[in-house]
Amino acid sequence: MSAEIICVGTELLLGDILNSNAQFIAQQLAQLGIPHYYQTVVGDNPQRLKQVIEIAASRVQILIFTGGLGPTPDDLTGETIADFFGVPLVESAEILEDITQKFAQRGRVMSPSNRKQALIPQGAKILPNPTGTAPGIIWQPRPGLTILTFPGVPSEMHRMWTDTAVPFLKSQGWGQEIIYSRSLKFWGIGESALAEKVSAYLNLPNPTVAPYAGKGEVRLRISAKATDEKAAKELIAPVKKQLKEIAGLDYYGADDDTLASVVGELLRSSGETLSVAESCTGGGLGQILTEIPGSSDYFWGGVISYDNTVKVRLLGVNPDDLDQFGAVSATVAEQMAIGVKNLLQTTWGLSITGIAGPSGGTATKPVGLVYIGMAGPGNEVTSYECKFGTMKNRSFIRLLSACTALDNLRRSVIVRTSV
Amino acid sequence: MSAEIICVGTELLLGDILNSNAQFIAQQLAQLGIPHYYQTVVGDNPQRLKQVIEIAASRVQILIFTGGLGPTPDDLTGETIADFFGVPLVESAEILEDITQKFAQRGRVMSPSNRKQALIPQGAKILPNPTGTAPGIIWQPRPGLTILTFPGVPSEMHRMWTDTAVPFLKSQGWGQEIIYSRSLKFWGIGESALAEKVSAYLNLPNPTVAPYAGKGEVRLRISAKATDEKAAKELIAPVKKQLKEIAGLDYYGADDDTLASVVGELLRSSGETLSVAESCTGGGLGQILTEIPGSSDYFWGGVISYDNTVKVRLLGVNPDDLDQFGAVSATVAEQMAIGVKNLLQTTWGLSITGIAGPSGGTATKPVGLVYIGMAGPGNEVTSYECKFGTMKNRSFIRLLSACTALDNLRRSVIVRTSV
Repeated sequence: MSAEIICVGTELLLGDILNSNAQFIAQQLAQLGIPHYYQTVVGDNPQRLKQVIEIAASRVQILIFTGGLGPTPDDLTGETIADFFGVPLVESAEILEDITQKFAQRGRVMSPSNRKQALIPQGAKILPNPTGTAPGIIWQPRPGLTILTFPGVPSEMHRMWTDTAVPFLKSQGWGQEIIYSRSLKFWGIGESALAEKVSAYLNLPNPTVAPYAGKGEVRLRISAKATDEKAAKELIAPVKKQLKEIAGLDYYGADDDTLASVVGELLRSSGETLSVAESCTGGGLGQILTEIPGSSDYFWGGVISYDNTVKVRLLGVNPDDLDQFGAVSATVAEQMAIGVKNLLQTTWGLSITGIAGPSGGTATKPVGLVYIGMAGPGNEVTSYECKFGTMKNRSFIRLLSACTALDNLRRSVIVRTSV
Repeated sequence: MSAEIICVGTELLLGDILNSNAQFIAQQLAQLGIPHYYQTVVGDNPQRLKQVIEIAASRVQILIFTGGLGPTPDDLTGETIADFFGVPLVESAEILEDITQKFAQRGRVMSPSNRKQALIPQGAKILPNPTGTAPGIIWQPRPGLTILTFPGVPSEMHRMWTDTAVPFLKSQGWGQEIIYSRSLKFWGIGESALAEKVSAYLNLPNPTVAPYAGKGEVRLRISAKATDEKAAKELIAPVKKQLKEIAGLDYYGADDDTLASVVGELLRSSGETLSVAESCTGGGLGQILTEIPGSSDYFWGGVISYDNTVKVRLLGVNPDDLDQFGAVSATVAEQMAIGVKNLLQTTWGLSITGIAGPSGGTATKPVGLVYIGMAGPGNEVTSYECKFGTMKNRSFIRLLSACTALDNLRRSVIVRTSV
């Protein structure tokens, strides 16, 4: 038994809107444990929509439609489905009454075109729309095939799904088994290297483990199929523990954790504070740190030393070293880190200086070369050289710089507190 | 002649990610005037992917695939396409060399699984991926059918589309009648207010004008259908001019302009410099300013004064005023602005202090209350009170704060230089 999602709307084919409805239904089906293997987008065109229905109805048992239920002439989903199965449309007095009332409530007069929304295939049940005028249907046009339709407006669709579709699907005996997933997050290791380390886990039947990569980080998603959340968690727990052990310090957090939230928790629990000195990230590291509510508990602020005069005057970077080694150097990164730590009187000082591009690179200092400086509780200062490569854009190099700085701090705080 | 989009990835079926790739390609095809009538999403499953290819190849001439080109065992797009058309995979020395170099650049060792990415169907051309390791292909497996493949990572896909796919499609004689669009951007006016001001333009046949709103700004998109870009631009130019005149100072830029780039150009041409003092944005204003390449010409840096001690010690905010008016006040915003201007010796000083939430709000100072301070060339100091409302989330309030600060500076610089 499986389902299929069919999204109807020329605006999707023109790229005017993102198909967030498909994502919502996909998540919901996954949680209900109802498999679905295909999603199709098709325009407001009866011939092509019929072709899509024919293909989908031949391979699954539940068809879920979004879009094309509105009052305008290009909204054709309901009548096309009825036509495909050779069933006439009938006017539902119940829907007509509901639409009339909703217009009256808003002090508006119903236009004749809205009457169209009261037409449903003979034999179909109404899938009520509490927050809009276009209702959907629940219909079994032939044995073994169930159709659910929803309007394209996401907020209306979500409410109808939760209020009516989920209880209906469960009443049919579907969605008795759920799929429950957890994500493990890693920094400082590539997707292929991590996949090789945990290769034995990538073929597990239940829970399954799958790697994903994006924005510089790698995730492993553990998905368990079980009768309820508790049973799923029990399946996931030992695998999660083993994967974390294999990955060691490259594992930084799970699910909603971010590098900034994890660093924040570490500093909060050690009672330590942090300041930053930023050159090429221009405030991006502070921005990420302060995205976390409550970050004022451990983050005191910093200096955006974009111009070299700021590095010298506020952070105490030695002008001779700036001349000799350049602003993008380990020496300057270290002086920035200790400088901001002393200036703001924090436990840790973290600095970034680099070449984010697109211009400014040289043969010896190419775009993507970044130095991260760190000054710690005992005033010990270290630095890290990163080569993010010349093929990444400015924005991504800056993001990688800030995240790598956080990751270095994370590792240092963990190592220090575990000694 | 039409195209079809096939997105491959179990993460799409699980609802883990939004299918932004389909939207991007849909927009691009619309701009090129290449019709497409179907989009399909399918998981990392060879049998089902083959079924999708069979259906699509029977009804269109261009198949565009995204996803499933990575190094892990579940990335199966390339080999499944080759298998469907009965063509063997061959290792491309050129790709292998490219991947090896990219790993070397980052100082990493290529794992054996990355070698898989060098396999392409015999006879296919390489669609180069300048910003990642997984290249795509351009392939004509049989007369009248062209296949293009892209990795699922959006940034890589966009670059490959623009650099190689668009020139290729045009070289084939596709995309001859174009839809050409320009966007006008506005800040400080709502979507409905702007739509009313320009209502006479919203029903034009060619070019069309349509309003869009998002992330605090409003855009008007002017789209012309024509045989070439020159003809389209001629249709757009007079409408663009009139819309700008109607909007006045609420219009800030077009197309790729951002508030930061516009402010940057204004400062660059007046030879003035800027520094920032940030509390609730924590570096976000500096981050946005330095996203612009070359911003070091006018942006010197700033102070992230997240903790009040930093406001007092570095920016010279009066501790008594902090006590009396609170950190979120017009007085403190003004002292921060003049403080950072003096500290960094710039022409302008721009400051932000506010309550980004979700907690920290009170009856008199609710979440969303933000003060923007500005110190100008003659040391005159002003401030602006913003009430972004309690319903917006922390991230959005911070973004609105930074953008509104830039917009206020933009208006001040324009007014001053036009006197």
